[in-house]
Amino acid sequence: MQEKTLAEPAAYPVGSVQRVLAAIHDPVRLEIVRRLFNAGTPLQCGALYDGINKSTATHHFRILREAGVTERLVTDGMTCQRLRRAEVDAAIPGLLESIVRSANGEADAR
Amino acid sequence: MQEKTLAEPAAYPVGSVQRVLAAIHDPVRLEIVRRLFNAGTPLQCGALYDGINKSTATHHFRILREAGVTERLVTDGMTCQRLRRAEVDAAIPGLLESIVRSANGEADAR
Repeated sequence: MQEKTLAEPAAYPVGSVQRVLAAIHDPVRLEIVRRLFNAGTPLQCGALYDGINKSTATHHFRILREAGVTERLVTDGMTCQRLRRAEVDAAIPGLLESIVRSANGEADAR
Repeated sequence: MQEKTLAEPAAYPVGSVQRVLAAIHDPVRLEIVRRLFNAGTPLQCGALYDGINKSTATHHFRILREAGVTERLVTDGMTCQRLRRAEVDAAIPGLLESIVRSANGEADAR
Protein backbone atom coordinates (compact mmCIF):
# COMPACT_ATOMS: atom_id res chain seq x y z
CA MET A 1 0.00 0.00 0.00
CA GLN A 2 1.35 3.38 -0.96
CA GLU A 3 1.66 6.00 1.67
CA LYS A 4 -0.12 9.26 1.01
CA THR A 5 2.31 12.13 1.12
CA LEU A 6 1.61 15.84 1.25
CA ALA A 7 3.87 17.22 -1.45
CA GLU A 8 2.65 20.70 -0.68
CA PRO A 9 4.76 23.13 1.35
CA ALA A 10 3.39 24.36 4.67
CA ALA A 11 3.18 27.89 3.35
CA TYR A 12 3.93 29.64 0.10
CA PRO A 13 5.80 32.94 -0.18
CA VAL A 14 3.55 35.96 -0.65
CA GLY A 15 3.05 36.43 -4.39
CA SER A 16 3.36 39.57 -6.49
CA VAL A 17 0.85 42.38 -5.96
CA GLN A 18 -0.92 41.21 -9.08
CA ARG A 19 -1.15 37.65 -7.81
CA VAL A 20 -2.37 38.68 -4.36
CA LEU A 21 -5.05 40.91 -5.91
CA ALA A 22 -6.08 38.08 -8.23
CA ALA A 23 -6.45 35.85 -5.17
CA ILE A 24 -8.46 38.38 -3.15
CA HIS A 25 -10.68 39.98 -5.81
CA ASP A 26 -13.06 37.03 -5.96
CA PRO A 27 -16.14 37.65 -3.75
CA VAL A 28 -15.91 34.30 -1.93
CA ARG A 29 -12.20 34.72 -1.25
CA LEU A 30 -12.59 38.36 -0.23
CA GLU A 31 -15.12 37.25 2.36
CA ILE A 32 -12.78 34.50 3.63
CA VAL A 33 -10.01 37.08 4.05
CA ARG A 34 -12.37 39.53 5.71
CA ARG A 35 -13.53 36.96 8.29
CA LEU A 36 -9.98 35.84 9.06
CA PHE A 37 -8.74 39.42 9.38
CA ASN A 38 -11.58 40.37 11.71
CA ALA A 39 -11.15 37.24 13.84
CA GLY A 40 -7.40 37.83 14.22
CA THR A 41 -6.91 34.11 14.77
CA PRO A 42 -7.04 30.96 12.62
CA LEU A 43 -10.58 29.74 11.97
CA GLN A 44 -12.03 26.41 11.01
CA CYS A 45 -12.75 26.19 7.30
CA GLY A 46 -16.51 25.86 7.74
CA ALA A 47 -16.70 29.23 9.47
CA LEU A 48 -15.30 31.00 6.43
CA TYR A 49 -17.95 30.66 3.78
CA ASP A 50 -21.69 30.31 3.21
CA GLY A 51 -23.66 28.92 0.31
CA ILE A 52 -20.93 26.99 -1.51
CA ASN A 53 -20.04 23.34 -1.27
CA LYS A 54 -16.91 21.94 0.31
CA SER A 55 -15.08 21.20 -2.94
CA THR A 56 -15.65 24.73 -4.20
CA ALA A 57 -14.40 26.04 -0.87
CA THR A 58 -11.31 23.83 -1.14
CA HIS A 59 -10.59 25.38 -4.53
CA HIS A 60 -10.82 28.89 -3.09
CA PHE A 61 -8.62 28.00 -0.10
CA ARG A 62 -6.00 26.64 -2.49
CA ILE A 63 -5.85 29.86 -4.52
CA LEU A 64 -5.45 31.96 -1.38
CA ARG A 65 -2.80 29.60 -0.05
CA GLU A 66 -0.79 29.48 -3.28
CA ALA A 67 -0.73 33.29 -3.38
CA GLY A 68 0.77 33.23 0.13
CA VAL A 69 -2.25 34.98 1.65
CA THR A 70 -3.32 32.13 3.92
CA GLU A 71 -1.95 28.87 5.21
CA ARG A 72 -3.56 25.67 6.41
CA LEU A 73 -3.08 24.47 9.95
CA VAL A 74 -4.17 21.17 11.39
CA THR A 75 -4.90 21.41 15.11
CA ASP A 76 -6.29 18.41 17.02
CA GLY A 77 -7.30 16.87 13.72
CA MET A 78 -9.24 19.98 12.67
CA THR A 79 -8.24 21.94 9.61
CA CYS A 80 -8.03 25.68 10.07
CA GLN A 81 -7.02 28.55 7.83
CA ARG A 82 -4.67 31.24 9.04
CA LEU A 83 -4.39 34.65 7.42
CA ARG A 84 -0.70 35.42 6.90
CA ARG A 85 -1.28 39.00 7.87
CA ALA A 86 2.25 39.91 8.92
CA GLU A 87 3.73 38.26 5.85
CA VAL A 88 1.32 40.00 3.46
CA ASP A 89 1.85 43.32 5.28
CA ALA A 90 5.60 43.00 4.89
CA ALA A 91 5.23 42.41 1.15
CA ILE A 92 2.41 44.88 0.43
CA PRO A 93 2.10 47.29 3.37
CA GLY A 94 -1.39 48.51 4.10
CA LEU A 95 -3.20 46.37 1.54
CA LEU A 96 -5.17 44.01 3.78
CA GLU A 97 -6.19 46.72 6.21
CA SER A 98 -7.40 49.01 3.43
CA ILE A 99 -9.41 46.26 1.77
CA VAL A 100 -10.94 44.80 4.92
CA ARG A 101 -11.83 48.16 6.44
CA SER A 102 -13.83 49.07 3.35
CA ALA A 103 -15.30 45.58 2.97
CA ASN A 104 -16.44 45.75 6.62
CA GLY A 105 -18.15 49.05 5.91
CA GLU A 106 -19.97 47.51 2.98
CA ALA A 107 -20.96 44.43 5.01
CA ASP A 108 -22.33 46.68 7.77
CA ALA A 109 -24.37 48.61 5.21
CA ARG A 110 -26.01 45.42 3.88
CA MET B 1 -30.16 61.22 -40.09
CA GLN B 2 -29.96 60.13 -36.52
CA GLU B 3 -27.60 61.91 -34.22
CA LYS B 4 -25.01 59.79 -32.48
CA THR B 5 -25.39 60.10 -28.74
CA LEU B 6 -23.06 59.02 -26.01
CA ALA B 7 -25.31 57.14 -23.63
CA GLU B 8 -22.40 56.63 -21.27
CA PRO B 9 -22.01 58.87 -18.22
CA ALA B 10 -18.87 60.98 -17.94
CA ALA B 11 -17.77 59.03 -14.88
CA TYR B 12 -19.12 56.13 -12.89
CA PRO B 13 -19.30 56.03 -9.10
CA VAL B 14 -16.48 54.06 -7.50
CA GLY B 15 -17.63 50.45 -7.21
CA SER B 16 -17.51 48.12 -4.23
CA VAL B 17 -14.12 46.98 -2.95
CA GLN B 18 -14.72 43.70 -4.71
CA ARG B 19 -15.44 45.41 -8.00
CA VAL B 20 -12.46 47.74 -7.76
CA LEU B 21 -10.17 44.79 -6.99
CA ALA B 22 -11.65 42.86 -9.91
CA ALA B 23 -10.87 45.85 -12.13
CA ILE B 24 -7.30 46.29 -10.90
CA HIS B 25 -6.14 42.69 -10.45
CA ASP B 26 -5.62 42.11 -14.17
CA PRO B 27 -1.95 42.64 -15.11
CA VAL B 28 -2.69 45.00 -18.02
CA ARG B 29 -5.07 47.10 -15.94
CA LEU B 30 -2.75 47.12 -12.94
CA GLU B 31 -0.03 48.56 -15.17
CA ILE B 32 -2.44 51.21 -16.54
CA VAL B 33 -3.30 52.26 -12.99
CA ARG B 34 0.37 52.24 -11.98
CA ARG B 35 1.38 54.52 -14.85
CA LEU B 36 -1.50 56.93 -14.21
CA PHE B 37 -0.79 57.04 -10.48
CA ASN B 38 2.91 57.71 -11.03
CA ALA B 39 2.24 60.39 -13.66
CA GLY B 40 -0.22 62.19 -11.39
CA THR B 41 -1.93 63.62 -14.46
CA PRO B 42 -4.18 62.29 -17.26
CA LEU B 43 -2.26 60.44 -19.96
CA GLN B 44 -3.00 59.62 -23.56
CA CYS B 45 -4.27 56.09 -23.98
CA GLY B 46 -1.28 54.96 -26.04
CA ALA B 47 1.10 55.73 -23.18
CA LEU B 48 -0.65 53.30 -20.89
CA TYR B 49 0.02 49.89 -22.34
CA ASP B 50 2.49 47.86 -24.38
CA GLY B 51 2.08 44.74 -26.45
CA ILE B 52 -1.71 44.67 -26.83
CA ASN B 53 -3.83 45.98 -29.67
CA LYS B 54 -6.11 48.99 -29.49
CA SER B 55 -9.36 47.04 -29.20
CA THR B 56 -8.01 44.99 -26.31
CA ALA B 57 -6.87 48.21 -24.66
CA THR B 58 -10.34 49.71 -25.15
CA HIS B 59 -11.82 46.70 -23.35
CA HIS B 60 -9.47 47.20 -20.39
CA PHE B 61 -10.16 50.95 -20.23
CA ARG B 62 -13.88 50.23 -20.14
CA ILE B 63 -13.58 47.86 -17.18
CA LEU B 64 -11.54 50.39 -15.22
CA ARG B 65 -13.98 53.15 -16.11
CA GLU B 66 -17.09 51.18 -15.17
CA ALA B 67 -15.57 50.37 -11.77
CA GLY B 68 -15.12 54.11 -11.23
CA VAL B 69 -11.33 53.83 -11.15
CA THR B 70 -10.64 55.95 -14.23
CA GLU B 71 -12.49 58.31 -16.51
CA ARG B 72 -12.04 59.31 -20.11
CA LEU B 73 -11.27 62.88 -21.06
CA VAL B 74 -11.14 64.32 -24.52
CA THR B 75 -8.75 67.27 -24.74
CA ASP B 76 -8.06 68.95 -28.09
CA GLY B 77 -9.48 65.90 -29.84
CA MET B 78 -7.13 63.55 -27.96
CA THR B 79 -8.50 60.88 -25.68
CA CYS B 80 -6.85 60.64 -22.30
CA GLN B 81 -7.45 58.54 -19.23
CA ARG B 82 -7.57 60.09 -15.79
CA LEU B 83 -7.10 58.10 -12.60
CA ARG B 84 -9.87 59.05 -10.16
CA ARG B 85 -7.45 58.97 -7.30
CA ALA B 86 -9.32 61.21 -4.88
CA GLU B 87 -12.60 59.44 -5.56
CA VAL B 88 -11.11 55.96 -5.09
CA ASP B 89 -9.25 57.16 -1.97
CA ALA B 90 -12.48 58.46 -0.49
CA ALA B 91 -14.19 55.11 -1.07
CA ILE B 92 -11.28 52.79 -0.19
CA PRO B 93 -8.65 54.78 1.71
CA GLY B 94 -5.07 53.70 1.13
CA LEU B 95 -5.78 51.09 -1.53
CA LEU B 96 -4.21 52.70 -4.59
CA GLU B 97 -1.14 53.88 -2.75
CA SER B 98 -0.54 50.48 -1.21
CA ILE B 99 -0.92 48.69 -4.53
CA VAL B 100 1.12 51.11 -6.62
CA ARG B 101 3.96 51.41 -4.12
CA SER B 102 4.45 47.64 -4.16
CA ALA B 103 3.92 47.39 -7.91
CA ASN B 104 6.57 50.08 -8.39
CA GLY B 105 8.98 48.08 -6.27
CA GLU B 106 8.36 45.01 -8.40
CA ALA B 107 8.78 47.01 -11.63
CA ASP B 108 12.08 48.43 -10.39
CA ALA B 109 13.28 44.93 -9.54
CA ARG B 110 12.58 43.67 -13.08
